[in-house]
Amino acid sequence: LGADELLIRPLRGLPEIAAGEDLGALIARSGDPGEGEIVVISQKVVSKAEGRLRHLTEVEPTAQAIELGQRAAKDPRLVQLALDESVAIVRVAPGVLITRTRGGWVCANAGIDSSNLEGEDVVALLPEDADRSARGIRASLRSDRGAAPGVIVADSFGRPWRLGQTDVAIGCAGVVPIDDWRGRHDRHGRELEATAIATLDEIAAAADLVRAKDSGIPGAVVAGLARLVTEEDGPGAVALRRPDDEDLFR
Amino acid sequence: LGADELLIRPLRGLPEIAAGEDLGALIARSGDPGEGEIVVISQKVVSKAEGRLRHLTEVEPTAQAIELGQRAAKDPRLVQLALDESVAIVRVAPGVLITRTRGGWVCANAGIDSSNLEGEDVVALLPEDADRSARGIRASLRSDRGAAPGVIVADSFGRPWRLGQTDVAIGCAGVVPIDDWRGRHDRHGRELEATAIATLDEIAAAADLVRAKDSGIPGAVVAGLARLVTEEDGPGAVALRRPDDEDLFR
Repeated sequence: LGADELLIRPLRGLPEIAAGEDLGALIARSGDPGEGEIVVISQKVVSKAEGRLRHLTEVEPTAQAIELGQRAAKDPRLVQLALDESVAIVRVAPGVLITRTRGGWVCANAGIDSSNLEGEDVVALLPEDADRSARGIRASLRSDRGAAPGVIVADSFGRPWRLGQTDVAIGCAGVVPIDDWRGRHDRHGRELEATAIATLDEIAAAADLVRAKDSGIPGAVVAGLARLVTEEDGPGAVALRRPDDEDLFR
Repeated sequence: LGADELLIRPLRGLPEIAAGEDLGALIARSGDPGEGEIVVISQKVVSKAEGRLRHLTEVEPTAQAIELGQRAAKDPRLVQLALDESVAIVRVAPGVLITRTRGGWVCANAGIDSSNLEGEDVVALLPEDADRSARGIRASLRSDRGAAPGVIVADSFGRPWRLGQTDVAIGCAGVVPIDDWRGRHDRHGRELEATAIATLDEIAAAADLVRAKDSGIPGAVVAGLARLVTEEDGPGAVALRRPDDEDLFR
């Protein structure tokens, strides 16, 4: 790999994951990632390992969920799960239910979805605390091999004014969340303004490009960003959550 | 490069760009990119080539710009330029001016900024039509070498509920804008829901990871995504603009 080059490869060799399994140990067994590399794992796999699957048939929707389900044209049982996972409703419209999750993320259906899961009525909730998940995976990788690669947990989120979804980071251990150039200077000695790069989200997006959605590939490994991998686990993806009162776009 | 692997390298060998120069021809001369590859160019470089630099000292702010400048705590001349480039004001607060540009993008200061430019009072407007810019660059690359790589024009935008900026696509030629999996099925035969990946934005974000903000590197080349490079120029980045009446987050 040349200087300043980036190589991204699919994470292969993981078995189907069941609740209670040590995801970090399984990743370590796959032989990936190496030191100074970053492994980006799909939220879905983490949720499976953490037993965050639910059966819709076992959900009893409340009156609020039934009413919201009608407004959103969504299964009231799914709405109930989303409400249970959320602290605030941001927007409801036909086909649309946006909430702020207990973890602080603003996204559709509280991040709950049903793709790539076995069973007609099975859905996956987000990990309770994906930063904690990432730290756990990293600890297993570290105990397996001494050095610890960076770990990011990623999910696909929609965006207010742009069509389509991109992968963003919802959890992280050992990767610099924001590369802050504010106060530093450009080549002309002029202060760089408002340049704080959300590196975690750019890495999550990059990693998504090597994962076809029907492939079952659970993640990717990014080589060439050792400058962003830290010895300490660091603040995690929580560093990317814009505080409610700084919500500039409402 | 292995199957399903992605390699990203900085675009090197471009001279300092002046107004009126043929950016595509200059890129072709740099030897990059090859067939089936995608070149991601910084908006700033495109704006320079298209003569979109402005001197603040030559701007006469209107009463509206002066009033908005006070509310946004911004230079009223910058505010004037942003107004001239916009069709709607989305949000004003101290330090914040979000508009919808004539091109349809919702972003801070109509995308105008001053980093990496020579001269204390020089700022760069967005290209008038960055899809057209991308098509022009691609045409030059094609006439130079027969086959045409994909071309993306990228800029750094903030996001409503997430801190930091990520690079997104504001122009494109010859790259599939959205990889739409809706209606297709996962490994379990279950229909994939709401999975339409904004590939252009993920590629732009990935490319940004190899460009240090003080390096003057004007772009990057992405290899390994030939499946997303098309013979036709295609719809461009306009395909990512969410129509006003589908703005789900207001």
